[in-house]
Amino acid sequence: MRAPGDRGGDLVRWPRRIGRIGLIQYEGTQTRPSCFQLEPVMSDLAPPIALETYRQQFPALNNKLYFNYGGQGPLSKAALDAILESYTLMQQHGPFSKKALESVTAQIGLTHLAIAQELGVSANTITLTESVTAGCNIALWGLPWQKGDRLLITDCEHPGIVAAVRELSRRFGLEIDICPVQGTLNEGDAVGAIAERIQRDTRLVVLSHILWNTGQVLPLAEIIAACRRQNPDVLLLVDAAQSVGVLPLNLAELDADFYAFTGHKWLCGPDGVGGLYIRPALHDRLQPTFIGWRGICVDASGCPTGWKQDGTKFEMATSAFPLYRGLQVAIEAHRQWGSPAQRYQRIYSLSQRLWSHLQDIPSLRTLRTAPPEAGLVSFQVEGQSHKEWVQVLENWQIMMRLIADPNCIRVCLHYLTLEAEVDTLAEKLRQMVQSKV
Amino acid sequence: MRAPGDRGGDLVRWPRRIGRIGLIQYEGTQTRPSCFQLEPVMSDLAPPIALETYRQQFPALNNKLYFNYGGQGPLSKAALDAILESYTLMQQHGPFSKKALESVTAQIGLTHLAIAQELGVSANTITLTESVTAGCNIALWGLPWQKGDRLLITDCEHPGIVAAVRELSRRFGLEIDICPVQGTLNEGDAVGAIAERIQRDTRLVVLSHILWNTGQVLPLAEIIAACRRQNPDVLLLVDAAQSVGVLPLNLAELDADFYAFTGHKWLCGPDGVGGLYIRPALHDRLQPTFIGWRGICVDASGCPTGWKQDGTKFEMATSAFPLYRGLQVAIEAHRQWGSPAQRYQRIYSLSQRLWSHLQDIPSLRTLRTAPPEAGLVSFQVEGQSHKEWVQVLENWQIMMRLIADPNCIRVCLHYLTLEAEVDTLAEKLRQMVQSKV
Repeated sequence: MRAPGDRGGDLVRWPRRIGRIGLIQYEGTQTRPSCFQLEPVMSDLAPPIALETYRQQFPALNNKLYFNYGGQGPLSKAALDAILESYTLMQQHGPFSKKALESVTAQIGLTHLAIAQELGVSANTITLTESVTAGCNIALWGLPWQKGDRLLITDCEHPGIVAAVRELSRRFGLEIDICPVQGTLNEGDAVGAIAERIQRDTRLVVLSHILWNTGQVLPLAEIIAACRRQNPDVLLLVDAAQSVGVLPLNLAELDADFYAFTGHKWLCGPDGVGGLYIRPALHDRLQPTFIGWRGICVDASGCPTGWKQDGTKFEMATSAFPLYRGLQVAIEAHRQWGSPAQRYQRIYSLSQRLWSHLQDIPSLRTLRTAPPEAGLVSFQVEGQSHKEWVQVLENWQIMMRLIADPNCIRVCLHYLTLEAEVDTLAEKLRQMVQSKV
Repeated sequence: MRAPGDRGGDLVRWPRRIGRIGLIQYEGTQTRPSCFQLEPVMSDLAPPIALETYRQQFPALNNKLYFNYGGQGPLSKAALDAILESYTLMQQHGPFSKKALESVTAQIGLTHLAIAQELGVSANTITLTESVTAGCNIALWGLPWQKGDRLLITDCEHPGIVAAVRELSRRFGLEIDICPVQGTLNEGDAVGAIAERIQRDTRLVVLSHILWNTGQVLPLAEIIAACRRQNPDVLLLVDAAQSVGVLPLNLAELDADFYAFTGHKWLCGPDGVGGLYIRPALHDRLQPTFIGWRGICVDASGCPTGWKQDGTKFEMATSAFPLYRGLQVAIEAHRQWGSPAQRYQRIYSLSQRLWSHLQDIPSLRTLRTAPPEAGLVSFQVEGQSHKEWVQVLENWQIMMRLIADPNCIRVCLHYLTLEAEVDTLAEKLRQMVQSKV
């Protein structure tokens, strides 16, 4: 499965052929996705904060080699302090009072704004949710389904989303089509594989921007265009669990319909805060399903009169509001460290570094035969139990995760990752292969 | 509207006629709801912890007179410390690792258990949610609705729930019947008002155990029995936002179908954690709607194979897990302070104290003409803007809330409330009436 000539020496290499994932190449070694927000001055400067200093903010990174950012990102001391401060302030203001409510309302708005800046959209397109899953469910259950409608889902979606789609199908009599993209990791055409399965009755495509198992970056802009060529009415729901905080994004340009994400993975916010971007043209077509006070307007006697006119239409009720401050602080820190492009460049570079190392370890096979395009590197070890390997590594305080399908081990490289961590991991894996742990 | 002879002198009085709300009277002045869990030894002992000492744990109570427990309860220092400790531990363990996942799984189980103990049910009947609203939505959207089915809802439900019911009705072609219970606060028969509106096609009744606006305690056991006599197939969804943490409960005996609650009001847990009790016989009849990894079982290749067999079936995905510890600690503290019956007795006594005070203030009218049965006391002031009053009181650091329908001011009395706070509030209100603030 290894591409000839893709092994060996140079640790940081740039792919020669990158059109498939919608990346554009310019200035020699600069590589950016086509949905990238241009910040030409910033992107050529060194990040203003030294990584080693910056990393000390993250207690989770101080006692282990951490490669599970795609499961959950580490929480900085600053983010935790902000959460704590927010709890303290709420107790001072109320916790329930006019002043406290004004403070919560302001925090909701600021969180919309912080996320919107990261995604390249306006704040009123953002709905805050408890998780990426909640965001997907809002889109799935909010469409006016008719019996016989078709829904196309890739064969690499998260089990939770698969189960949601199945239940949706059972309730409304939908036909589910499965689109095999796992096989397009190294060869084949993901765009074609998806677009050719769009039928006249296909209402929704459910796919991930970055596949959580193999790490493949789907060329979303091309897929959206190809799907709409097949059927102008088809909508796309994107599970962005692995792309937000990794890819530089401009969703307004990308023109995605629904883009569901979480703050607690690559963005390093607290667990329990995520969101959903809804394309403005779809705001009125999507109906809220799980409904509470946050999404509605009421008259003077408290009687519901309609929906809010921005993304809060799909927000439900009381959430863990103090955590919103934590996510804001986490995002602000990323932005201070570097532009989305700079962060992505580093993730890209570190992933290539690890991938290159792994090419030299006998019996170990990266799922991708070409260097990775983002922060996930999945691999298999011949004749070994991946479950046992993950456990042994965790015992050594090296954290990565097992993936069930395809059976493999997944490593996540963040811009917070150090080159030395990558090298140590590779060395450790080499030793494990040699000693047949 | 005042009942003759109900005004005046004695501050703490017990009602003579309490059958309507399902309370039973015994041992002279002991008054308990019929759903009460018997703890005969404990209930006659003084609480082991002095209230003044105990209250110092709650920063929110130290800079104000707080009467908004029904909006949000104060968070104790111990609960916040537990949350902080949980965050720290998760960063130490992972935050994403086998060890971290084991810790989260344990915390989910312990939270089920802590809540179950409070409600008098087994832990496997409890689903953790983000809010009481989420719990109501799980029940509302999880039933197999057919066009033409009827849903009966009282005229005192929270606007968020009203909006959810309306959208449900629009989607599935349901008929909504409104049941006027607001008018039964002082006279009339809430049981009859509800039961007589149950029709052959009525599938669900949506009602609150304690009405959030008037504070009326609905006699739930009687209502359940009466509704089932009318139609053995009818189900009852109870909004328990104002009853959990107030009434001593034994849901297993009460035989409620769905009982949705939150931890952040009377239980004084963090906002963002609530739950839903589902009667075991209904576990298989209710389908999950918003679905994710927490509710499903998967096979060796990660493919969904079915639902979890306990309340986690209806849990979705990643939540703010460290907050679960906060709720556990909050509940544990209540249990240490006193039994559910002791806590209720104190709430009851304080509410009666306030109600009695208010009877003596000219131009001020409590909505209830008889003493209150639980912790909410709502009142109106003749010729005054309640909105302005609430604002003026908040400026003086006295927190209560405005209710839109019926237009009134709502005061919440917790067992944490001091007699002196009640007396000061009454005195302040008297001064306001006299000075026409």
